[in-house]
Amino acid sequence: MNEKYNQLKAILAEIADLNHAAALIGWDQQVYMPEGAAEEHGNMLGTLGKIAHEKFVSEEVGRLLEDLKRELPSLDPQSDEYRLIRSAARDYDKETRVPSEFIVEHAQVTAMAHQAWAEARARSNFAHFQPHLEKVVELSQRYVAFFPPADHPYDTLLDLFEPGMKTAEVRAIFDAVRPQQVELIRAIGQRPQVEDAFMHLAYDEQRMWDFSRDIAGAFGYDWKRGRQDPTVHPFCQSIGIDDVRITSRWVADLPFALLFGTMHETGHALYEQGIGRQWSRTNLSDGASLGVHESQSRMWENIIGRSHAFWEFFYPQLQARFPAQLAGVGLDQFYQGINKVQPSLIRVEADEATYNLHIMLRLELEIAMLEGQVAIRDLPELWNSKMKEYLGVVPPDDALGVLQDVHWSGGMLGYFSTYALGNLISAQLWEKFTAQTPAFEAQIRQGDFSSLLTWLRENIHQHGRKYEPQELVQRVTGSKIDPAPYVRYLRQKYGAIYGL
Amino acid sequence: MNEKYNQLKAILAEIADLNHAAALIGWDQQVYMPEGAAEEHGNMLGTLGKIAHEKFVSEEVGRLLEDLKRELPSLDPQSDEYRLIRSAARDYDKETRVPSEFIVEHAQVTAMAHQAWAEARARSNFAHFQPHLEKVVELSQRYVAFFPPADHPYDTLLDLFEPGMKTAEVRAIFDAVRPQQVELIRAIGQRPQVEDAFMHLAYDEQRMWDFSRDIAGAFGYDWKRGRQDPTVHPFCQSIGIDDVRITSRWVADLPFALLFGTMHETGHALYEQGIGRQWSRTNLSDGASLGVHESQSRMWENIIGRSHAFWEFFYPQLQARFPAQLAGVGLDQFYQGINKVQPSLIRVEADEATYNLHIMLRLELEIAMLEGQVAIRDLPELWNSKMKEYLGVVPPDDALGVLQDVHWSGGMLGYFSTYALGNLISAQLWEKFTAQTPAFEAQIRQGDFSSLLTWLRENIHQHGRKYEPQELVQRVTGSKIDPAPYVRYLRQKYGAIYGL
Repeated sequence: MNEKYNQLKAILAEIADLNHAAALIGWDQQVYMPEGAAEEHGNMLGTLGKIAHEKFVSEEVGRLLEDLKRELPSLDPQSDEYRLIRSAARDYDKETRVPSEFIVEHAQVTAMAHQAWAEARARSNFAHFQPHLEKVVELSQRYVAFFPPADHPYDTLLDLFEPGMKTAEVRAIFDAVRPQQVELIRAIGQRPQVEDAFMHLAYDEQRMWDFSRDIAGAFGYDWKRGRQDPTVHPFCQSIGIDDVRITSRWVADLPFALLFGTMHETGHALYEQGIGRQWSRTNLSDGASLGVHESQSRMWENIIGRSHAFWEFFYPQLQARFPAQLAGVGLDQFYQGINKVQPSLIRVEADEATYNLHIMLRLELEIAMLEGQVAIRDLPELWNSKMKEYLGVVPPDDALGVLQDVHWSGGMLGYFSTYALGNLISAQLWEKFTAQTPAFEAQIRQGDFSSLLTWLRENIHQHGRKYEPQELVQRVTGSKIDPAPYVRYLRQKYGAIYGL
Repeated sequence: MNEKYNQLKAILAEIADLNHAAALIGWDQQVYMPEGAAEEHGNMLGTLGKIAHEKFVSEEVGRLLEDLKRELPSLDPQSDEYRLIRSAARDYDKETRVPSEFIVEHAQVTAMAHQAWAEARARSNFAHFQPHLEKVVELSQRYVAFFPPADHPYDTLLDLFEPGMKTAEVRAIFDAVRPQQVELIRAIGQRPQVEDAFMHLAYDEQRMWDFSRDIAGAFGYDWKRGRQDPTVHPFCQSIGIDDVRITSRWVADLPFALLFGTMHETGHALYEQGIGRQWSRTNLSDGASLGVHESQSRMWENIIGRSHAFWEFFYPQLQARFPAQLAGVGLDQFYQGINKVQPSLIRVEADEATYNLHIMLRLELEIAMLEGQVAIRDLPELWNSKMKEYLGVVPPDDALGVLQDVHWSGGMLGYFSTYALGNLISAQLWEKFTAQTPAFEAQIRQGDFSSLLTWLRENIHQHGRKYEPQELVQRVTGSKIDPAPYVRYLRQKYGAIYGL
């Protein structure tokens, strides 16, 4: 066993190195690449991806995994070895089921679809995108057919992003949350709106960058193993445990987007920087799922970064840096302003209280598309009616409606729900942590986040991808993903802000 | 033939992609890598290098090359196909002759030697480095023994950097130049020294960066296919024809080093950006040799960038940017100052007139070491006596003498002469170009370098590595590498400056 296990790990290490190189190339593309180098970067990524894939689906790995799987019954199912082998075997199964001709076809269809989507959105013309989306959905259906039948065909797609999660589970969770969130934002809509004019004044860019760096450092981001650069779309890129980079975006009209965006990416980065070193250069050196990953970014951006206790410590510093804009704005007004709830059309600009409803709408449409229960041409109408039902707003055109997100054009069905699951998991972890650490609020008021980071490191980060998301959440909180803490969190926070 | 040729090119393209990825990682290491990520970057580079090597020395490539070599007699020896096959076959021969155990041993010995060299230089203690250098020389002797006997054992090392060049040729060239350069600097030493106090004043860093970027752009550097960043050691890194990056260094005490360093790296970059697209992702997408590469950097840094005609156009701009420092300095005084000749101890700080002598000294010592004609312990004494003979100066200690350069600690014997060859080639090309383009000096006076760049593109750049250096120089100038133009260039330029 040991010899074969080490052979497998040696191959996984090389694959990890290739993936890290691809991650660096991807980072460079968005940060510093000269504009003329796009094709060369594409060539590099194509070759690295091809070699990594060939190395993984090789006969050698297949034989090693067959032999090692036979050893599983003699291993502790909680051991690192067991989990690494099982996870590698599952990944191997996934990568070998899909024929390479399908992957090529998928790349071609989505390249065309992406271009058509960009044109369609620019002209707000869904009909231009419709035939491409039909092909994408058809590809997703064919992809599902490569796998053994699941409880629901959507399970196969969901499993790519939330290993082990079932469509029925996600639906049940969302069904429990939706009416309560809809009711909450209706109640908020009846109350006087909070004041946030200070968020739309002119702020000095460099000072906001400096403040955002200070906050990332205060959260515990290790600058010796990371860096921050400006980009058009903020992201976190791990090039290995010791090289986890974040990017942020300055938009003069939305000066606080840089700050909260940095907190968000820092949350992702703290996860990646905290993965246990035993997973370095293995297939488990990653987050448990996209949902769990998102729980970390939302934790630091929203639960911490938009909390009253946080700003009790940091608001005087912010005021000192921006006296012209903030000297006349009290802490409570600031706190209310950064937590303003306002149903809106665009998902990526949605506030904490309305965000999940954008996701639920997309999940329902995705499932209906995959099941073939909705004609693609009817999508805009369906979109608009659900927007009205959940959020009380209706897009004036498809660019602000069904065409707003890039994901479907890239064939990424099964992805959206991870965003909402992240919100739910963040509140569930937070409830557990604060119950175990009553002194925490006092610590935040001192600008001290070390006990939260230590708790997350121990309970979440260090495990990497060892546990599936439901199992991980169960281990930490005692129950599977549960929407109740998030609903409690929203009611308590926004009840106070809006006087409900 | 066509099918096998295309198969070979497909493999070479993947190897090129891997090498480009490694180049980007190498660039990142020196420019933006977080300090904690050194080991992860090392892992990536190790894996990419291993896979690229394995792909190239594979049986498949061996069989393809055997088959294709049999087709060579039926091909035009000047055709791209012929040259690509022959060059790949030679590279294959080089890479397959050296056992992988030797490569591992070489990496270990030089890693230790590098550390010992750094310590030895810091303490100016050659004895600490001596046993390591002995091992490095012994490794070089063993490396040579993997190859068929050449006219001289040093030929095998030289061939790594200057394909096809013979030790006897380099010696003959250097023997012709040396007495004339020694005589020239002695004559200069008899004359009053020029005034260069303005070069040691305080200059604004940002303005010097801006000016250096303007000059790079004026030379023809394509900013859409490149970028400039600050680093400790300036370099040019090609990540493919469409992504050729330069770096520069700001040293407050040497404010003009940034400017001339940028010109130097721009010269390298113009070569790489100008390689013909037919060579993209092949083994010929590179310079003809290090010497030819250096001829391009020296051309733009020295022959252009330190010429009177160049500054007739740009000096008023420089004065306008730095009026406090330069308003009282006339063009002629400036021109003399940036061309001051002063024999000195350190190669990398040497001026145009003395530089080659530093190289000749190193070449003679390298050959003597490889032949075993000098005991390593006697190296410092030999170094100092040659410094006295060629340059009239003697190092006060070994840190400023035999220990100053890093190259030997890395096992890079055979490399130094390429620097001097670059100087000679640059003048030889320049003489040919100006003979063909009498209007050029007038064009420089207008800040227009397009006819030189076009000429270099056509005669040098586009060919990539298609021709060996001697063949290339012969094609362009009608004779092999010839030191006479460089001697004429130095005599004319410095005769005027120093009134000889």
